[in-house]
Amino acid sequence: MKIILDVDPGIDDAMAIALALKTKGVQLLGLTTVGGNLPLNKTTDNAAKILKLLGANCKVYPGMAGPLIRELHTAEQIHGPTGLGYLDLPAAQEYIGNKHGVDFIIDEINNNPHEVTLIAVGPLTNVANAIKKDKSVIDKVKEIIIMGGAVYTGGNVTPAAEFNIYVDPESAQIVFNSGANITLVGLDVTLQALLTEEHIEILKEKGGKIGQAIGSMTDFYLERYKDHNKLKGCALHDPLAVGVALDKSLVKTQKVFVAVETKGEFTRGETLGDVHGRFGKEPNINVCIEVDEKRFINSFMETLTS
Amino acid sequence: MKIILDVDPGIDDAMAIALALKTKGVQLLGLTTVGGNLPLNKTTDNAAKILKLLGANCKVYPGMAGPLIRELHTAEQIHGPTGLGYLDLPAAQEYIGNKHGVDFIIDEINNNPHEVTLIAVGPLTNVANAIKKDKSVIDKVKEIIIMGGAVYTGGNVTPAAEFNIYVDPESAQIVFNSGANITLVGLDVTLQALLTEEHIEILKEKGGKIGQAIGSMTDFYLERYKDHNKLKGCALHDPLAVGVALDKSLVKTQKVFVAVETKGEFTRGETLGDVHGRFGKEPNINVCIEVDEKRFINSFMETLTS
Repeated sequence: MKIILDVDPGIDDAMAIALALKTKGVQLLGLTTVGGNLPLNKTTDNAAKILKLLGANCKVYPGMAGPLIRELHTAEQIHGPTGLGYLDLPAAQEYIGNKHGVDFIIDEINNNPHEVTLIAVGPLTNVANAIKKDKSVIDKVKEIIIMGGAVYTGGNVTPAAEFNIYVDPESAQIVFNSGANITLVGLDVTLQALLTEEHIEILKEKGGKIGQAIGSMTDFYLERYKDHNKLKGCALHDPLAVGVALDKSLVKTQKVFVAVETKGEFTRGETLGDVHGRFGKEPNINVCIEVDEKRFINSFMETLTS
Repeated sequence: MKIILDVDPGIDDAMAIALALKTKGVQLLGLTTVGGNLPLNKTTDNAAKILKLLGANCKVYPGMAGPLIRELHTAEQIHGPTGLGYLDLPAAQEYIGNKHGVDFIIDEINNNPHEVTLIAVGPLTNVANAIKKDKSVIDKVKEIIIMGGAVYTGGNVTPAAEFNIYVDPESAQIVFNSGANITLVGLDVTLQALLTEEHIEILKEKGGKIGQAIGSMTDFYLERYKDHNKLKGCALHDPLAVGVALDKSLVKTQKVFVAVETKGEFTRGETLGDVHGRFGKEPNINVCIEVDEKRFINSFMETLTS
């Protein structure tokens, strides 16, 4: 299974990369980075550091630094001093590839038609730009799995919007309406996929250096989560998108038209699932509405401790 | 308890009027009508007919025909041929008062300072205009109970918006931000207050001419509800607002800032509850988040069959 992972690490991005790299049968073609949780230079450096830590045989290709038409809005307060919580990894410039992220996406999809699963777990700026630059990727990509949105639930940046879509709603609108085969892994399901302190203890013990790294990252994340969301653990937003890419049976999906609000005063980046067809548009997105969170967490733990 | 009921009958408006008129201890000062479910001339005629049917000793005062800045969007398909389902009542011009609805609201609140509960169950055009014309009503009204919005749940006109707020979001924004003491009875709770076919049979049997009338109205309503919402009954949206005005213990409320979206492409009239204070605004609305639906329905049935 050929995967490109479009990321903005970010703590849960790092865990998503680890999950993809440690899953048997996955061929990670490369990472692309985007400005999102942190500015592009930091997300790129962090992605490279994670690849090095994991001894990956692929590189990271830096993409778009900021949204299509807006200023970049980051989430550094959520992801800690280094963007990977308290984890301070050695520089890994050798893992940064010499091609623009958007071109990497276009080239790999063209070189492997109908074979590449594109998993986008940051703002959708790279994906939108790839589609705009080469429309043929819409049909040639096998599928696009997106961590983003809050279709039938509240947001996490505003009451309306989830972070990735909030940051670049115009790109999200382009991607959602592109006609590509898209599955949306939003807060509807990711807030159910929680890594608890008990899980993290096990990862620290049995997960080798990746487990240790996840421990250092999530110590910070958990503190933030307790402050903010009163959840009993940290939500594995981005890893769940990888999990869904690997095994669709983890989720129940429903295909509906998902509108992305780009014009609202209070609703920037809201994702609305039009279950009753009120907007009169064709369904465009497979929205994940339920997740077998136990099976996902077990599988996540098994992969990272094996 | 002095009440003004601002209505746009409408089937559930008619039931709300009946509930207010038949409740002991309620002094209904008058009805005001607004363009909403139907055009103003029809909502006024229907309100008058209901007053006549019930032998009320108050009148209806026609208010604003349409929203502050938008075209009127009606819901005649929901409320049937006469706007009261299949119910065809005799004309009742003698129940239509000779004062503008907005002025009636202003005058009654000024004449009864801190005593009037204003219950608004249509688009908020009259209430906004009253506030704009005489700011003193904001402090002089005892409280405003509003049937409208879908704060933590989906809408019924679009995935985002409930009908009353959708029709005139600018008026809703003015009223919500006025500083008045406001309780919002939205779809969050009204979709739980269901009148079933069994209830309607009882009303037809024991409710006298009002019960008969409710039967004729709800036969139509129930058909529509089955088509549209797959609920096992019809939601008592407007009666619940009256119920809450009479007895706050029926609901659990939470005071938060509720943003009204007026600018969105897909989110016109959405009401967003800012539980986490993300918009940095002072709480302005007591949002009903839970309802003791059994107690409300029992009380509704008792009042209308007594």
